[in-house]
Amino acid sequence: MIKYEKYLQTHQSRFVNELLDFLRIPSVSALSEHAADIHQTANWVVKRMKAAGIVDAYCLTTGGAPVVYGEWLHAPGKPTILIYGHYDVQPVDPVELWTNPPFAPVVRHDKVYARGASDDKGNMLIPIIAVEAMLAKGENLPVNLKFFFEGEEEIGSPHLMEFMQKHSQKFACDLVISADGVQWGEDQPGLLIGFKGLCALQIDVFGPETDLHSGIYGGTIQNPIHALASILNSLRNPSGQIAVEGFYDDVASLNETERNQMKVIPYDNSDYTAKLGVTELFGEPGYTTWERAWVRPTLEVNGIWGGFQEEGVKTVIPKEAHAKITCRLVPNQDPHDITKRIINHVEAHTPIGVKATVLSESSVASAYTIPQDHPGNQIAYETLEALYGKPPYYTRLGGTLPICNIFLDTLGVYTVTFAFGLEDEKPHAPDEFFRLRSFRRGQLAYCKLLERLGQQANLDNDLE
Amino acid sequence: MIKYEKYLQTHQSRFVNELLDFLRIPSVSALSEHAADIHQTANWVVKRMKAAGIVDAYCLTTGGAPVVYGEWLHAPGKPTILIYGHYDVQPVDPVELWTNPPFAPVVRHDKVYARGASDDKGNMLIPIIAVEAMLAKGENLPVNLKFFFEGEEEIGSPHLMEFMQKHSQKFACDLVISADGVQWGEDQPGLLIGFKGLCALQIDVFGPETDLHSGIYGGTIQNPIHALASILNSLRNPSGQIAVEGFYDDVASLNETERNQMKVIPYDNSDYTAKLGVTELFGEPGYTTWERAWVRPTLEVNGIWGGFQEEGVKTVIPKEAHAKITCRLVPNQDPHDITKRIINHVEAHTPIGVKATVLSESSVASAYTIPQDHPGNQIAYETLEALYGKPPYYTRLGGTLPICNIFLDTLGVYTVTFAFGLEDEKPHAPDEFFRLRSFRRGQLAYCKLLERLGQQANLDNDLE
Repeated sequence: MIKYEKYLQTHQSRFVNELLDFLRIPSVSALSEHAADIHQTANWVVKRMKAAGIVDAYCLTTGGAPVVYGEWLHAPGKPTILIYGHYDVQPVDPVELWTNPPFAPVVRHDKVYARGASDDKGNMLIPIIAVEAMLAKGENLPVNLKFFFEGEEEIGSPHLMEFMQKHSQKFACDLVISADGVQWGEDQPGLLIGFKGLCALQIDVFGPETDLHSGIYGGTIQNPIHALASILNSLRNPSGQIAVEGFYDDVASLNETERNQMKVIPYDNSDYTAKLGVTELFGEPGYTTWERAWVRPTLEVNGIWGGFQEEGVKTVIPKEAHAKITCRLVPNQDPHDITKRIINHVEAHTPIGVKATVLSESSVASAYTIPQDHPGNQIAYETLEALYGKPPYYTRLGGTLPICNIFLDTLGVYTVTFAFGLEDEKPHAPDEFFRLRSFRRGQLAYCKLLERLGQQANLDNDLE
Repeated sequence: MIKYEKYLQTHQSRFVNELLDFLRIPSVSALSEHAADIHQTANWVVKRMKAAGIVDAYCLTTGGAPVVYGEWLHAPGKPTILIYGHYDVQPVDPVELWTNPPFAPVVRHDKVYARGASDDKGNMLIPIIAVEAMLAKGENLPVNLKFFFEGEEEIGSPHLMEFMQKHSQKFACDLVISADGVQWGEDQPGLLIGFKGLCALQIDVFGPETDLHSGIYGGTIQNPIHALASILNSLRNPSGQIAVEGFYDDVASLNETERNQMKVIPYDNSDYTAKLGVTELFGEPGYTTWERAWVRPTLEVNGIWGGFQEEGVKTVIPKEAHAKITCRLVPNQDPHDITKRIINHVEAHTPIGVKATVLSESSVASAYTIPQDHPGNQIAYETLEALYGKPPYYTRLGGTLPICNIFLDTLGVYTVTFAFGLEDEKPHAPDEFFRLRSFRRGQLAYCKLLERLGQQANLDNDLE
């Protein structure tokens, strides 16, 4: 047995207790009442890293939650790897739906239940433990390491771009490994190679100066809700295609290899519909569900409101109506260009008698993909294949991870996702949990990954 | 000066204070939290009637809000007139748009501002005051009087049909005068001869079992808000015609006299648009604004809601979306038939992947018209002509007064509208107000009307 493997086995119950301690601090970044908890959590992480042997560990201020930094740079000639994770967690509402209090972690059937267990405290503790195991008894690491743990991921990392622009020298590295992400299944590895981009808009339709009596004015003026329904309906054609001019123009098409990689991923239509509680699927014609979710851009109305919304009847023509829209974008689509196209579309499709304005929200992100043949990606692939005994699927996520693009822009390096959460672990919902089996396997996986990275002469980023 | 005229002048400031007291009670019939206020208001009206000399005044139970009843039957050989009004008011949302709190009435520039000031508390207090003035110092009334003040007008009088069927003997009369309605202008009288009918529906669209992350599931399932927008859009074609099959089938067409009576009523397009704050009008092609408002059926969305409606961005596919709709109907249209046609339409136009249900609200009414040569109508016409110094216009209202049909069905008598609100008084909107000039003039008008009615031998209902 390899030395670090034995170390991990010997100390596993302590690691679990440390995870429970970590989970007890309610580091909810969205709520200002938890600001002190955020700082306490950052300090906990610094202390834990030092205990692992990362003696140069400390907090950096960002204007928001601190970034926890750490470094071990004693492997001359070896690549420098930056490990990313986040110590903040989602809010806990609706708290009444939790079986146990969200910040009183419990272990049941080899799973730990608590807010943040899977996303991302359990996952981000893994590389720290792996490093402790490799450094034990005076050993060295096979690579140079830097750590970057942020405390604002769950609120969209609002300070990170500026922070990284300021500190790009400090974080210079050859590759980022993200300890925030998911595996495909308990026994099937997956390698995330793409995230969608995002743009967000609010459409406001204004009609008469005040709400009007529908019995007096009904039928004589444009109704803002009718107008909004007409605008929203015009954004999509009945078959499910987005009808905004040029929406698909820049979409990168998949090559044969990529199409085939998606085809091997198992998909069961009745499982999918049953899980969501819908009778049938609906989406852009000519594409599979994985393609619709991962590589085709989407436009969804997230909210709508206007007029009377209570019990009973109110015969009113409302003065205004509103809707919120987000688009999930794919590689080569520019979120600012898409925003502009939607604004133009709304202008061109506003019925007479009302005024429509479009507000562009600040949440904007480009899509991110890592080339599949990137050496870092290949090493992660081989590590997972050896560990699980089968090749990983190449998967993607419709969700957005702006941090990957921030690292690409400021450090000029790609991010490989190497994390062990599973999709069923309720990351943003009550009764979030993390499998301790994944916790243990992840520790070993990180040791193996760092070893393999240390053997790699060239981590050329191959920025195409 | 006639005795009652002097009495009205002398006591006017007390009457205004009483109106303010009346307006302070938040008698919102649509919201169950105001049930106690409804009862308090009914008791206030009873007390006020007794103070006016209607000693036989009390509440009658209906299954919903009480009807306030009162009688003065000491004019043998004279006709019996039933005076109608309502003491309930519309909800106050959006409450933040009120200059003053809606139930803290204030007087500015001879106008009283409060919810219900014009619709209908100010108007229904007028005949009570008129009767007090005529009865003062032991005088008699020129007619027999019964009073009927309901507390559910703003929710479509759901219990009144059954109530009137049970109590038709008690309310037997020769004519109903409604103190709920409007005049044409400050110096131009109008006589309302028709009201539209009503049907009300709620459309509920259901998609996935829970709100879903748009990054994971976006583009793969039907979005309930998109589906609702599509349904709403299908109800009307872009030119403004209702696209529900058979919607116009039973609409009664106007005769030459009726068309001509509408043509003499002045209409100024730029006044109309300026008053409402819209850039242009919109409605069914081929009809004038008065025709659209008064004699053509309409369909308006009154409210819509679903998903995320707060500040910022939430990337959610909501599990459901909702809209409220009312139709204003014209003579010969059956509200139940129209309701059924809309339900069928929604069924036929629901996009795949969601379930839509239509709830038919209890607010249902047929349109109402009074023959123009009805004697009661003629007396009201002459009273208004004498008071204003010019002949009234024959006008109609897109609004609904189901009570007129209930009286016609259960008592066999027509209802003449004799009220003094003005259309610009924002009856269902923030900053509702009532002109005190109308309040004073109405009191005198009611005295004159009752005098004229007392001189009329025959109030033959002439039920055609």
